[in-house]
Amino acid sequence: MRKFDLLTPVDAVAKLNAALDAAGYGPAHGIAATEVIPTMRARDRVLARDIVSPTPMPEFRRSAVDGYAVRANATPGVLRVIGEVRMGEIAPFAIRYGEAALVHTGGNLPEGADAVVMLEDTVPLTLDDRRQAEPTDGSLPSVLVRQWKIQTNKKLAPGENAIQPGEDVKAGEVVVRAGMRLREQEIGGLLALGVTQVEVIRKPRVALIASGDELVPAESETRPGQVRNINAPMLAALVARNGGEPFDFGILPDVRAAFEEAAQRAMREVDMVIFMAGSSVGERDFVPEVVNAMGEPGILAHGILFRPGKPTLFAVCNGKPVFGLPGNPISALVTGMLFAMPALWRIQGALNPPEPRFIRATLAREMKSPQDLEHWFPVRLGIGDSRSEKSNFVQFPIANRHSPLWAEPISTKSNLIFGLARADGIACAPIGVEHLAASAEIDVRLFD
Amino acid sequence: MRKFDLLTPVDAVAKLNAALDAAGYGPAHGIAATEVIPTMRARDRVLARDIVSPTPMPEFRRSAVDGYAVRANATPGVLRVIGEVRMGEIAPFAIRYGEAALVHTGGNLPEGADAVVMLEDTVPLTLDDRRQAEPTDGSLPSVLVRQWKIQTNKKLAPGENAIQPGEDVKAGEVVVRAGMRLREQEIGGLLALGVTQVEVIRKPRVALIASGDELVPAESETRPGQVRNINAPMLAALVARNGGEPFDFGILPDVRAAFEEAAQRAMREVDMVIFMAGSSVGERDFVPEVVNAMGEPGILAHGILFRPGKPTLFAVCNGKPVFGLPGNPISALVTGMLFAMPALWRIQGALNPPEPRFIRATLAREMKSPQDLEHWFPVRLGIGDSRSEKSNFVQFPIANRHSPLWAEPISTKSNLIFGLARADGIACAPIGVEHLAASAEIDVRLFD
Repeated sequence: MRKFDLLTPVDAVAKLNAALDAAGYGPAHGIAATEVIPTMRARDRVLARDIVSPTPMPEFRRSAVDGYAVRANATPGVLRVIGEVRMGEIAPFAIRYGEAALVHTGGNLPEGADAVVMLEDTVPLTLDDRRQAEPTDGSLPSVLVRQWKIQTNKKLAPGENAIQPGEDVKAGEVVVRAGMRLREQEIGGLLALGVTQVEVIRKPRVALIASGDELVPAESETRPGQVRNINAPMLAALVARNGGEPFDFGILPDVRAAFEEAAQRAMREVDMVIFMAGSSVGERDFVPEVVNAMGEPGILAHGILFRPGKPTLFAVCNGKPVFGLPGNPISALVTGMLFAMPALWRIQGALNPPEPRFIRATLAREMKSPQDLEHWFPVRLGIGDSRSEKSNFVQFPIANRHSPLWAEPISTKSNLIFGLARADGIACAPIGVEHLAASAEIDVRLFD
Repeated sequence: MRKFDLLTPVDAVAKLNAALDAAGYGPAHGIAATEVIPTMRARDRVLARDIVSPTPMPEFRRSAVDGYAVRANATPGVLRVIGEVRMGEIAPFAIRYGEAALVHTGGNLPEGADAVVMLEDTVPLTLDDRRQAEPTDGSLPSVLVRQWKIQTNKKLAPGENAIQPGEDVKAGEVVVRAGMRLREQEIGGLLALGVTQVEVIRKPRVALIASGDELVPAESETRPGQVRNINAPMLAALVARNGGEPFDFGILPDVRAAFEEAAQRAMREVDMVIFMAGSSVGERDFVPEVVNAMGEPGILAHGILFRPGKPTLFAVCNGKPVFGLPGNPISALVTGMLFAMPALWRIQGALNPPEPRFIRATLAREMKSPQDLEHWFPVRLGIGDSRSEKSNFVQFPIANRHSPLWAEPISTKSNLIFGLARADGIACAPIGVEHLAASAEIDVRLFD
């Protein structure tokens, strides 16, 4: 990792994406393994194959409104009400010229009817018990049905307020495309068609490999000089939220053979590999050499013009994305979010991965930044139009607020993880920018 | 639900929030039930109590860089290297005036040293085997350590590149506040301190109560006239993603006693109630009367100036939020997202609920809207600077794109759910706006 070899983040990501494309990944082209799961449990899973509708939708002619099913050519005029179409049933009668039947939204349109006149466009005409019978609520006492007449001044067009079979979806139509990350509406749509099982991309398995003689498992007590391995649980949570299945490979000692063995196991067992620490240039940094032996094309970027996380390594080995993230927890988390998670969605073949959330804010104080790096710094958001209100912590959805929003950079000299725990998001000083002025408008990428 | 009684969405939400405040909910004031869970599994759970650090962090003096631990008052000058501080260990020696010890980032700073000179600010002076020993990689062959000298021209200040115990977190300091929805960085921070279990708000239980004689369970076959109940699985997925635990109460027949029984059971068993269908004004619409008997203050808004979902009902009954959402699946999903989910976060007492994602786009064609309603319509996003490219589906994170983004409204005459399945998000024509011009800039709320 020599300084003149470092790539900009944009160039490094472009190389990574090109190598993933070459390995066969892309929109609707995820890892080959799939599984069949209940549609109800498929939120955020990526569909493996196009789904074709087995039936038209709706399956029967329906009313789009509460009203009376009629023949359009009998309107305007006086119509005799011959019955009510009950929800969940097919009308047991047909509508002839001059007749009408009460029908509810979504109810079946009887034979013979070709339009629906809305309740509010009708006047009841039978006067024998008008007070009781007035159809203000869309239903009729059934004893009255046969004596009922309505008048409408509305001239209906054939098909008005009626939904035809297949109007929403035709039988044989592709209703959800391979590559869609399923949302509530796809789940609902598929269930509406009776598709209760779906074939989805198997969750990519992601190896999390930490290293460092100073590390102990996060659940352990520490002796002086030791620190807990928090990168693995943080990255595990991140991977799980982004459609992957994390596999904790534990903590490697700073011994080359341990890295080689873990790398070989990872290439056999998982779909993506994340090393945490060991990608820099020290004697203990075995990741670059080990990764280069893991397969072609190997390392694509070793060191990026990025803070936090200059020593980040991107590779593709035998069709699997491999990341060397820094051991520093802030760097590991930020580079994991910005670089590794998009790759995880890419190997799922997702057409619609989750979008990052950005929000505009005013920088609360001047921010200095290294001129040669793309620098992402943590900020805390506050609300209020005067500086004295900066102590207001933002609560409840920011997007609903109309007050101006300020962003206060958080100093993290020691780079320990609580610098991010105090932050609402991160903001960027691009390469070439050494100075963001107080009161500059910036885009803050909110943490999810 | 008379037209002149309808509230604007803003007013309806304000009434709801005021009633939830009065019921004792608010930032850091969720439902009373809590549970203790492993910190590692606490992503997106809301912390029930402030967490105080049991130890300072870091627990020992650490180096912030790779370099040599020294006494600052001995710089600049020539220093004798007396050893290396190994990671995970406490230095077995102290540094005296004129001495230095190799130390790695995060390693223990030895007794006597008060600063660290960075590797790149030193020159090795021992010449016996300079090629082999040149410390380009931050480490030394240990056989050489005792013969080593370095020179630095840097004048260090006491404390430079050193991290003091407690510099990041003091013992007894509140490190994560009650009400925080935990993210990766809080999980990492708490684990770093040895906090392996956390007390969080128990997931609020949410009753999902569907009704309609035409409905059958989503897994069932349909007879003509029947439709599958897709609202319950869609809302269940939505509730689960927003920190709640959905309880499917099944499909009620259009019979008042069934609603009363379900309402009583819900008030005993759950923390929040969502009726789907039955909140309008028809004979079958038992929800309003039943909700008013569920407890004080009862119905807050019955009918809102909103599309899709004018018949939506908001209530708080005996301290529990109760919603009557429309039976139409698009309305149920959109009102569930926009109105019910924020309330679900509120009863968790979340300080930092997930923010909606908005993105700016150009409207691809004119959009007409009812003047008296806040109208949210589904849009599909496309990329490209000419209209002919509109068929390009957006793929991969939009936020990384520099091309202009257009938003094409999706017509959903029949209001069936696939209208949302074709959409990337929804956009708003506010009350008073009857017409959004083609090429207007709009904010699209992306589906998650």
